[in-house]
Amino acid sequence: MPDQTELRVESETLTNFCVRVFQKLGVSEVDAHITADVLVTADLRGIESHGVARVRRYVDGLRTGMIIAQPEARVVRETPATALIDAGAGLGQPVSYRAMQKAIEKAKDVGAGFVTVCNSNHYGIAGYYAMMALEHDCIGMSMTNADVLVVPTFGRNAMLGTNPIAVAAPANEERPFVLDMATSTVPRGKLEVYERLGKPIPFGWATDERGIGTDDAHRVLENFTKRAGGGLLPLGGEGESLSGYKGYGLALWVDVFSGVLSSAAFATLVYPRTHAGKPLPSNLGHFFGAWRIDGFRPVDEFKESMDDFQRLLKNGPKAAGQERIYIPGEKEYEKTELYLREGIPLNPKVAIDLKAIAKEIGVEYDL
Amino acid sequence: MPDQTELRVESETLTNFCVRVFQKLGVSEVDAHITADVLVTADLRGIESHGVARVRRYVDGLRTGMIIAQPEARVVRETPATALIDAGAGLGQPVSYRAMQKAIEKAKDVGAGFVTVCNSNHYGIAGYYAMMALEHDCIGMSMTNADVLVVPTFGRNAMLGTNPIAVAAPANEERPFVLDMATSTVPRGKLEVYERLGKPIPFGWATDERGIGTDDAHRVLENFTKRAGGGLLPLGGEGESLSGYKGYGLALWVDVFSGVLSSAAFATLVYPRTHAGKPLPSNLGHFFGAWRIDGFRPVDEFKESMDDFQRLLKNGPKAAGQERIYIPGEKEYEKTELYLREGIPLNPKVAIDLKAIAKEIGVEYDL
Repeated sequence: MPDQTELRVESETLTNFCVRVFQKLGVSEVDAHITADVLVTADLRGIESHGVARVRRYVDGLRTGMIIAQPEARVVRETPATALIDAGAGLGQPVSYRAMQKAIEKAKDVGAGFVTVCNSNHYGIAGYYAMMALEHDCIGMSMTNADVLVVPTFGRNAMLGTNPIAVAAPANEERPFVLDMATSTVPRGKLEVYERLGKPIPFGWATDERGIGTDDAHRVLENFTKRAGGGLLPLGGEGESLSGYKGYGLALWVDVFSGVLSSAAFATLVYPRTHAGKPLPSNLGHFFGAWRIDGFRPVDEFKESMDDFQRLLKNGPKAAGQERIYIPGEKEYEKTELYLREGIPLNPKVAIDLKAIAKEIGVEYDL
Repeated sequence: MPDQTELRVESETLTNFCVRVFQKLGVSEVDAHITADVLVTADLRGIESHGVARVRRYVDGLRTGMIIAQPEARVVRETPATALIDAGAGLGQPVSYRAMQKAIEKAKDVGAGFVTVCNSNHYGIAGYYAMMALEHDCIGMSMTNADVLVVPTFGRNAMLGTNPIAVAAPANEERPFVLDMATSTVPRGKLEVYERLGKPIPFGWATDERGIGTDDAHRVLENFTKRAGGGLLPLGGEGESLSGYKGYGLALWVDVFSGVLSSAAFATLVYPRTHAGKPLPSNLGHFFGAWRIDGFRPVDEFKESMDDFQRLLKNGPKAAGQERIYIPGEKEYEKTELYLREGIPLNPKVAIDLKAIAKEIGVEYDL
C-alpha cells in the first residue's frame, strides 16, 4: 500500500495536466502530448529529476522565448542512413521523437539509421528515444549533451554536461535491456539530496573550487551557483587511479556525436547564453540511432539469446550480503509497474510548483 | 635518449618477425601482415598488453587448432548498412580488418555501415579498427567481447570480459579523437604489475572470492587461476556508491552488440571450452561501425569544430597540482611518435619468449 500521507497521481492525469500547460504556452497539441509523455515516462521509471519536476524549466524557457513554442524544424542534410535536423530552438522532446522515428524508418529501409539534431533544448530522459526502437524489432540508441556540470580529468572547472548514453534492445520473455546512464558518477540532484540531509558525499562524486575531490555537497553546489570552479566527476572519479579518464572519455564521445557532429554547441559553449539581458536558445545537440536486428540475425533468435544472456547473469552467484544481480532497465520496469498500479508519487515541493504554474498561466490544476 | 640497457626494436623489424611466425604456422601472407600490424600498432601506442606480448597466445591457438590458420570466413547476412560475418574460427585480426573495411564501404554507399563478426578469436586493440575510419573521413567504432574476468555489480563470480569500446573521429590540425577503453576499471595486467611490486591495489579494482572489494592483487589473480570467484570490477567499482552498475551496464552493452547480435558466445559462454581434452574455438564476437561525417555536416566544418572542441578542453584551467588536460588518444599518439623515432621498447621477458617461439617453430630471430 502506498503511504497515505503521500500524494499519488495517475499517469494519465499528470500527462493531461502537462499537455494543458504546454498548449496554453502555444505548443501544438501533438507536440504538447509528446513532451508530456516523455516527462511522465521519466516519473514512471523513477527518474524524478527528469520528470514533471522539470516543467518549471520548460515553462520559463517558453515564456522567455529561449524555447520556441512553434519552431520551424527542418531536415538540413540527408542520406539513406543519416540525417541532420535543425530543431529551430523548439522543445527538445518533439524534435527528438521525430528524429528517432526517422532513424527507425531508415533502419527499416537500409538496415540502420542515425539522426543528429542541433539548435535544440533539454530533451528529457535519453532512454525514452532508445526505447522507441523496441516495438520495431530494432536496437535503439540516444545521446545528448547538456548543461555544463562535469569536470574533465585533471581540470579545475566544469566543462562538460552529464552527457547520457542510452541503448535499448528487446528480449523475448525477459524485459528489454535498457541502459540509460549519465557519464558522470552521479547527477547534480544526488548532491542536492545529500545537502538536504547534511550528509557527506562519497569521494569520487565531485571536486571543490580547486579541482580537488571533496565530500562537501554544499560547497560543490554553491560553487556551481557562483561558477567558482569544481563540479561533478566523470564515472571513475578523480584523476586516474580508478580510471576517471574513461568516464571523461565517454562524456567527450557523447559530445562529439551530439554537439560536434550536429553543428550544435559543445563543451563550455553549452553554458546558458544571454543577449541584451535575455536568454538565448541553448543550441543543445542530440544523437539518435537504430539498428534493424534482422540486418544481423533473425529477430526471434536474437530475442531468445537476449533471454539466455539475462538469465545467465541474473542466476549468477551473488556477492556476500547481496541478493540480486540486476539487468539495466530492470529496476525502472519494476517502478513503472508499481506506479501504474498505485499512482506516481508526487513530491510535495513539485506539487506546489505545478499548482503555482497553473495559476500563473491560467490552466486548471487537478493533481 | 632511450635507456641503453633496454632492448629497442624498430617497428618494421618487429612486424616482419611476426609475419614470419604467422606465415610459418600456415597463415596467408596477407593475413599474417594484418595480424602483425595490429599487434605492433598496439606496442607503438604503448598498449604492451595487447602487442607482441600476445604472440604466444596466437601461436598456441594456431598450433592446437583452436585458431584456424586458413579459415573460411563468409558473409552470413547483409543489408545496405549491415552485415554479419562468420570468421570460421580464424585469427581475429584479419576478419576484423575486413569487417571494418566493409563497414566503411557501406558508410560510403548509404551513410553508415555496421558489421558484426561471430566465431572469431581475440582481435587485439579495439582502437585499431575504429581508427581505420579516419582516413575515409568517417567516424569509426569497434567493440568486442573477451575472456571472462569481470564481475557483474552484486555478483560473486566473473561473468563478463573487459569488453572494450573504441571510437575514433578525425580533427583538422589537432590529432584525431581516439577513445579506446576497457569497460572494467583496470585490465588484469595492472593487477599483475602490482603483484610483482608487492603493492596493494586501490579498492575499486577487484573483488575477492566472496565478491567483496580487496586490495590484494595476488589473491585476485590466484582466484582467477582456481576459478574460485571474484574478479575485476566494472568501471565505477564495487556496488552502487560510485555507480559501478554503469560500468557493468557498458560491459553488457558491448556483449549485446558483439556477442548476442552476432550469434557468437556471450557472458560466461566465452570461457575457454574443451572437447576430448582439446581446446575448442572461442567463438568471440565483435562489432564494427562507421559513420560518414558528411552524412551529417560538411567534413571540413566537422574537423574544424573538432579542433575547437579539443582546444577548449586542453586550454581549460587545471586542477590544483595538475599541468595538463588530455584528449583521449593523445598520450598514445605521443608514444607512437616517440617509439617511431627511438624504437619500441621490448620487455626482456617478452623478448625471451619470442626467441623461444622462433626456435620452436623454426623461423629466424632478429630482434
